Order: sequence, then C-alpha cells, then structure tokens
Amino acid sequence: MVRPLNFIPSCLLLLAPQLPSAMARQRFEDVFPCIRSELIDHITAQGMPKEAIQWYTNNLNYNVPGGKLNRGISVVDSFQVLKGTTLTEDEYQKAAILGWCVELLQAFFLVSDDVMDSSITRRGQPCWYKNPEVGLIAINDAFMLESAIYHLIKSRFRQESYYVDLLELFHETTYQTEMGQLIDLITAPEDHVDLSKFNLTKHRLIVVYKTAFYSFYLPVALSMYMAGIPDSYPSPVSPNETVKPFDVALSILLQIGEYFQIQDDFLDYHVPPELLGKVGTDILDNKCSWVINTALAVRGTLSATRKTEIRAILDENYGRKDGEKEARVKAVLKELDIAEIYNEYEEGVYAKLKGEIEKIPEGPGLGLRRDVFTKFLGKIYKRQK
Amino acid sequence: MVRPLNFIPSCLLLLAPQLPSAMARQRFEDVFPCIRSELIDHITAQGMPKEAIQWYTNNLNYNVPGGKLNRGISVVDSFQVLKGTTLTEDEYQKAAILGWCVELLQAFFLVSDDVMDSSITRRGQPCWYKNPEVGLIAINDAFMLESAIYHLIKSRFRQESYYVDLLELFHETTYQTEMGQLIDLITAPEDHVDLSKFNLTKHRLIVVYKTAFYSFYLPVALSMYMAGIPDSYPSPVSPNETVKPFDVALSILLQIGEYFQIQDDFLDYHVPPELLGKVGTDILDNKCSWVINTALAVRGTLSATRKTEIRAILDENYGRKDGEKEARVKAVLKELDIAEIYNEYEEGVYAKLKGEIEKIPEGPGLGLRRDVFTKFLGKIYKRQK
Repeated sequence: MVRPLNFIPSCLLLLAPQLPSAMARQRFEDVFPCIRSELIDHITAQGMPKEAIQWYTNNLNYNVPGGKLNRGISVVDSFQVLKGTTLTEDEYQKAAILGWCVELLQAFFLVSDDVMDSSITRRGQPCWYKNPEVGLIAINDAFMLESAIYHLIKSRFRQESYYVDLLELFHETTYQTEMGQLIDLITAPEDHVDLSKFNLTKHRLIVVYKTAFYSFYLPVALSMYMAGIPDSYPSPVSPNETVKPFDVALSILLQIGEYFQIQDDFLDYHVPPELLGKVGTDILDNKCSWVINTALAVRGTLSATRKTEIRAILDENYGRKDGEKEARVKAVLKELDIAEIYNEYEEGVYAKLKGEIEKIPEGPGLGLRRDVFTKFLGKIYKRQK
Repeated sequence: MVRPLNFIPSCLLLLAPQLPSAMARQRFEDVFPCIRSELIDHITAQGMPKEAIQWYTNNLNYNVPGGKLNRGISVVDSFQVLKGTTLTEDEYQKAAILGWCVELLQAFFLVSDDVMDSSITRRGQPCWYKNPEVGLIAINDAFMLESAIYHLIKSRFRQESYYVDLLELFHETTYQTEMGQLIDLITAPEDHVDLSKFNLTKHRLIVVYKTAFYSFYLPVALSMYMAGIPDSYPSPVSPNETVKPFDVALSILLQIGEYFQIQDDFLDYHVPPELLGKVGTDILDNKCSWVINTALAVRGTLSATRKTEIRAILDENYGRKDGEKEARVKAVLKELDIAEIYNEYEEGVYAKLKGEIEKIPEGPGLGLRRDVFTKFLGKIYKRQK
C-alpha cells in the first residue's frame, strides 16, 4: 500500500503530540525554495553576473531560513483561524509568502543589527558579516533582503484589493522598528554605561517599537487583510456598537509583545544556560532589559541607605564585560527578589490579556476571532526557554 | 517701492545668467524645512523621547540637504517641461516633495555606502558615521532616511491615482541600485586588486544599476506620473504607431546616465584638482572606472610585447594606496591616449542621443517632450567638473 507523504498513524499522533506543529513548520519551510527561485530568477533576468547571483543566493540561504520561524508561521496560523475552514493550496501559498516576507523583514533587521551591535553569532553560526569575505557588504545584503519583500508582494498580490494595505503596513512597521532600534542604540550603547538613561517607560517604548510591532502585530494584521476583515463592522453581539478590529488587534498584540520581551529579559537572567539553550549576556552587554529597569525602580521595604548602596553597586557593575561584576549585579537582583516581581507581573498580565480577549465579540460572519490571540498567549505563558 | 522677494532687475539677469538657476535651487531648498517638520512631528506624535527626536533632526539636517540637489530639482524641472505652463504653488510643492524623496533615497545610499567603503569625507564634511557619537548607528539612520520616503509619499499622494506607481517605482529603483552596489562591491573591493574581474560590460552594468536608474530615470519617471502621462498613446505624428513613453524615457536616460558616469570617471583621471574641485582617487582606490576598463580593452597599434608589459604595469600598480604607483598607471594611460578615446566616445554618444531625442514624436496634447532630455544632455555635454 502506498501511503501519502503526510500520512501519520494515529498511534504516533497520540505518542507525539508535537508532530502536527513540526509538520506545519515543514510545510511552511517547503515554500522557501519557491520564493528563493523567484528572487534569483528575477535578478538573473536583470542580467546580473553569475558571481552576484551566487552571492544573493548565499545571502538568502544563510539569513532567511534557520530561525524559529514563529513570526512567519503565525501569518498562516492566524489566517487559518480567521478563515475558519481548511485553506486551499492557493490560500496556503499566499499566506505562507506573506509569512516569508515577515521573515525577510526580520532577516533585514538581524543582519544589520548584528553589524551595529558587533555581535559574534546568530542562530548557532557566525553572524553573516563575520564571514571573512562578507564584512560590511552585509549592509547592502540586508537592504536586498528588504527589497525582496516588495518584489514578492508585487508579484503575488498586485491584483488584490488589499495590495496597498500590505505595502503600507510593511512600510509603517519597518519605520516603527527602526525608531525602536534608534532609541535602544542611543539609550544602551554597549561601551558606555549610564543607568540614569534607563527607566521602565523607556524600556516599554523600546520593546513595543523594536519588537512588538513587527513580531506580533504585523503577522496578524497581514492575515486580517488577506481574510478580508474590514476596517470596522457592527458588533455581532450588540449591533449598535462598532468593532474596529485592527485597533483591537493592535492593542492586544502590543501588550502580548511587551509581555513576551519582558519574559525574554527575565529568562536571560533567571534560567540556567543548560535549560535556556544559550548563555544570557544582558547584564554583561549593558542591555536596557526589564530586569535592570525593575531593579532600578524597586522601592519596597528597603532602607534609604541600602537603596543608595544598591544603586552604587548597579552603577559600578552593570554592563561591564566582567564575570565578577556580573555576579555582583546578580546578587543584588536576588536580594531585590526580581523573580517574585516577575511572577506577579506574569500572572497579572496573563489575567488582563485573557479578560481583554474574552471581550472580543464573535459572531457567525467574517470578523476577528479570539483564537488568534489565545494561541499566541498559550505559547508564551509560563514559557521556560 | 516694495519689491517682491523674487524681483531681479533685468540688468542683473544679463550680467549673471546663473541667477535664475540659483533661484530655482533656493526655491527647492525652501521646501526642505516643511518636509523635516512633517517627519519630526510624526515621530514626536509616536511618543519618541526627545533625544531620539533630536538625533533624527540631526540625521536629516546633516545628510539630506547640502548636496548638488541635481536629482531632486530635475523632478521639478521635468514636470515643468511636461506640463508646459507655469506650475501652481500646489503643483510646485508636490513636485518638490517627490524631488526631496529622491534626495532622501540618495542620502540613504550615501550614508550607508560611506560605511561600506570606509570613506572619510562627503560633501566637504566628515561622513556621518565618522562623527564619534554616531559610528555604526549610521546604518539605522540610513534606514530611517529610506522610511521617510514612504511616509511622505503616503501623506501627500495617497489620494492620487498614481500613488501605487510612485511606491512601485521607488521600490524597484531601490532594488536596482542595491544590485549595482553589490556588483561593484564584489568586483572592486578596495583591499584586493584583481583586474581580471574588470571589463567594459561589467562597468556598464555597475553604472546603469548603481547610478543611472536612481539619478536619471527615477526623477523623470516621477514627473511623468505626476503629469498624468499614460503608459502608451498613439503617436501624434503617425497615429498608427504607439508611443511607450516610459520605455522611451528609460532607454534615453540610462544612456545619459552611462555617459554621465563615464565622463565622471574620465574627469577624475584627467582634470587637475584645482579645476575639478576635489582630488581624483579612482586609481588609488581600485575603482572599476571607465578609464581602467578602457585601458584594459585597448588593442590599437601596440605590439603584443608592449601590451603584455602594459598589463603587467597595471596589475602591479592599479588600486594601491601609493602615489608613485598611481603615477606609473597615469603614464600608461597617457601612452594609450585615453583622452582621445574619451573625446571620440563623447562626440559619438552625444550625436547618438541627440538623434534619439529628435525622434520622439511631439504633438499639442499630453505626452513626452524632447526638452526633458535635451536639458539633461545640455548640462552634461563637455562638462569640466
């Protein structure tokens, strides 16, 4: 008996509940070669010399796949939830292409951020610019990853009524992310520690602009345009009220994005490397992390003298490339019980978000679905790595 | 008697024929503060902290005005030719905004190219990234100059029927320029000379992609969209034939762009610094210039032995940061009479372009105008700096 390639015996499904998500990932990954071919065919048709074609192929292969692909896959997942029925092959392809456009945008940011931050490794391999033949050509390579987005959207979505919405959404999100990167770069340069520049308000601004817009709002908003969700519609439960679905999605997803990054900052500090899968270096690297901002803001039951002492310890030891100084910072963070503050934060934000999601009015017609958001929240809550 | 600000006594006009063009430049420059305000107001409204607002203001002021502004002003000039009558204030503003978008695109390229090329000065001041507080943050600053383009086009042109055409034209031109930069970077790295990678075909490809699309085609095509010139129309002189005005403009302007760059390469080699206004460094910098490519291709009446000797001299001396080696290269270029080859090229390309421009069919209605191209050609022909 010949079985289709996607056949999985039901006993295996029971034993390995992660398989469907691995298959979803595989199906998404399988779209990448088509995208790469389209981009390579295009620059070949423009008459580029073979060294340039090979270079761009290497750039795409090295920098675009190989990440966790959460952002890209969430375009497909959200679209699936909004549509409600099984996607046709054509629908799957289009959602996946938008998903890969999000991954291209991320690749554009990561390749250039690594140059700006003098990073060494990324996704378990040397950063692209660290390859001896690449160097600062990486900057132009990052640009070409960004340009690929608009080439793909034009070639696949030009006939759609929401074509301009896609272009504007990518433009705006790109600009917002760059604003976030700017605040981060001038607030927390790796070589000059000044904790007076740090506070939780600025941390929130950096997180929302640098991460939340492109990682959380962008994928969902793309899927909403694809699903044909209008700018506003009457609430299906109280028809006198108007739902503004993009505003609702933005508000919830920026909060989820902030929660995700605060958690990321906390795990960097709190989880041992063997569990986290990498060595947390935020303290050494002068990162404007939730952990240090929370420590700077702690009032609590400490005496004024101890508060002054703690601030002096943080000023002298944070952001220095020195393991002993890092240990002194960690001792203070333990004294301030940052882990307890984090747990309270996590329970609070989770309850608040659950409440907001449950308030989204759902009806039988086309409209926003709570499941778009509960899926995100479920993946993040109590995450350990 | 109170005179209007733009009043110029006619005797002065006769004495100083450059004044009207200086006034045109001034009028164009006067639009920049409005553009800067709009961009700054926007990031302020997004809640950016004051240091970031100040940083972006500095970025815009340092990198956007201050160049020759030929590209930006040519949007206005071309639109004026196509419209045929005096522009209203609103029309002037809109054309000037598109002109400043071309200048923003150029600023995005120059700021990042200077980082990639480790350049020292630009427009008579240190390159942006060379300012000690800037460094590699310049990469993100370049991105924000690019993003500004799409913000401005959205805010000023969203209601226009040609809005998507503007977006697609900027996307495509950006991608083409990046392809040109890629070929240039991998063909002529400053630290590794390999003349076997050079040839006139590759030089042409680099010039057309890296310079001609964005410097010559982009400004004219923008003005054509603004003027409402259709994709095709019946020829006003032989109505059975169809004019494809964007194809005609592309073909002529890429040739003008190639001519301009070849001339630029030749002037860098041939004109003494006191006349050129800068010191030509193409030979020292291993530039894939028309001059070296022409020298490598010279056949003529030289003996085979002398050809081999010359190639060896070029291989050993080109692209080295060494004045004596540069002098040896220059002696060979003189022996090969590159100046004579250039003069022949200039006369030939000028005659060819004049012929092609004269073939453009003109009629009383809306359509392409020869003057758009003759103005460019007139500014370039026999230029000495």
